[in-house]
Amino acid sequence: MYYGGIEAGGTKFVCAVSDENQKIIARIKFPTNSPQETIKNIKQFFEKYQLEKLAVGAFGPIGINKKNPDYGYVKETPKAGWQHFNFLGELKKFIHVPIVWTTDVNIASYGEYRKGAAINKSSAVYLTVGTGIGGGLIYKDDVYQNWNHPEMGHIKVAPMKGDNFTGDCPYHKNCLEGMAAGPALEARACKKAFDLNKDDPIWRLEAFYLAQAAMTYTLLYAPEIVIFGGGVSNQQQLFPLIRKSFAKQLNQYVNTPPLDEYLVHAQLGDDAGITGALLLAHGK
Amino acid sequence: MYYGGIEAGGTKFVCAVSDENQKIIARIKFPTNSPQETIKNIKQFFEKYQLEKLAVGAFGPIGINKKNPDYGYVKETPKAGWQHFNFLGELKKFIHVPIVWTTDVNIASYGEYRKGAAINKSSAVYLTVGTGIGGGLIYKDDVYQNWNHPEMGHIKVAPMKGDNFTGDCPYHKNCLEGMAAGPALEARACKKAFDLNKDDPIWRLEAFYLAQAAMTYTLLYAPEIVIFGGGVSNQQQLFPLIRKSFAKQLNQYVNTPPLDEYLVHAQLGDDAGITGALLLAHGK
Repeated sequence: MYYGGIEAGGTKFVCAVSDENQKIIARIKFPTNSPQETIKNIKQFFEKYQLEKLAVGAFGPIGINKKNPDYGYVKETPKAGWQHFNFLGELKKFIHVPIVWTTDVNIASYGEYRKGAAINKSSAVYLTVGTGIGGGLIYKDDVYQNWNHPEMGHIKVAPMKGDNFTGDCPYHKNCLEGMAAGPALEARACKKAFDLNKDDPIWRLEAFYLAQAAMTYTLLYAPEIVIFGGGVSNQQQLFPLIRKSFAKQLNQYVNTPPLDEYLVHAQLGDDAGITGALLLAHGK
Repeated sequence: MYYGGIEAGGTKFVCAVSDENQKIIARIKFPTNSPQETIKNIKQFFEKYQLEKLAVGAFGPIGINKKNPDYGYVKETPKAGWQHFNFLGELKKFIHVPIVWTTDVNIASYGEYRKGAAINKSSAVYLTVGTGIGGGLIYKDDVYQNWNHPEMGHIKVAPMKGDNFTGDCPYHKNCLEGMAAGPALEARACKKAFDLNKDDPIWRLEAFYLAQAAMTYTLLYAPEIVIFGGGVSNQQQLFPLIRKSFAKQLNQYVNTPPLDEYLVHAQLGDDAGITGALLLAHGK
């Protein structure tokens, strides 16, 4: 009994196969080139295995609404060649088993939920903060998907007092990604985020926006944990600042678990995505 | 086969019983007095019926997390006598059938979903905008409840350019309720909302905040419809303004249904709550 997983990222793909004991028996990684070449690589990797089920987490935005004609497609993306590509349709040409189709951040969320920071929790929000910001919600043991997948990075945020930067998102001013993803930090500081001192005041500003977003997720999703992954979140000095700002902004309006258990760093790193994909394919 | 519903509002209670065809066969309404008197009224009403199941939607905040000791309780509330009242526990003393326990806005959401503005939709957000702001999400045919129930009225909003009012919420500045519920409108205008002209510029401001909130719900919940109920939403001139502002703020970042079908007025009025409670008790 084999289960397949594909983490389809904007820069790299990871494909893997696990057995009935959830043990990974094969795994490859290759750069995200043209769709044609990528499909060829995927086909070659999986043709040796008789899969029971496959789960795919793709960079997006993707069509996840079965009622819409763009279901299974990669939609608008800056990634050359991938715009309006019927990814799921191409996979179905050679993989004739059920396919779970979701976003890259959703499989990572599910990985952290089942094997990472949210072990033993009943729900989780996972937010990746890097060159962009995206998030996934695990609710009732499954990834939350509705008319669309969540777009956690594009909610508007109220500006911090004195912050006149209105963000670098081409779609809207004052959205979380435009205000707090890596490029926004760098645009303000005029240097790379990892070159900034750990006590640079910009981290307090970053923490303010991430805390505000965590407050919004808390009020709307009421998860049992909020997990931060991605490059920016590797700045460990952020976490005490996020918790402090979160407590101040939420002002105890609702109860949460203790903040050092509630607002936490991801545990699986780069493995979150493929881990989650294989577990989604495998089921409970 | 009888099913019971209780809409437990902060000012009035509605109790009703429906038969197996979902027809209401009895219904009463009484003001929300002390918990003791209220429980007596409820007992008296239901003792004539052998119920299969009961659903209760209570004013809150309430404890909805079965893992917590406050499950079934009304928590902090300005309503005299009701603070930390074990409402569900008191009901269970004389109602020995399964009880669905949720918020008043959740039963109204479910009512609008099954019999009101969201008929034939697969998910819905319902927002009541009156003296406060609260909301419910219907996802996968059920009310969304997690570690807590959603608190849609307390998300922070980015202020409209030139609006220096920071809200009248005692918990946090710039939250939706503090900026856009009836009392906030009245604090700005120095008169009652229903005395304001339909072309008063304040409606454009109100629409800006409601549209921003609808954008956040759209990005995080991706519902098939967003329904506005409550006293302020009866100002029909708001809807074209909300749709226009929503389109401008979201800037087509994600697709939604056409806005005149997506951002709509509630249909069931005061009946939404008890309708939803009876349907939740009845099941599919």
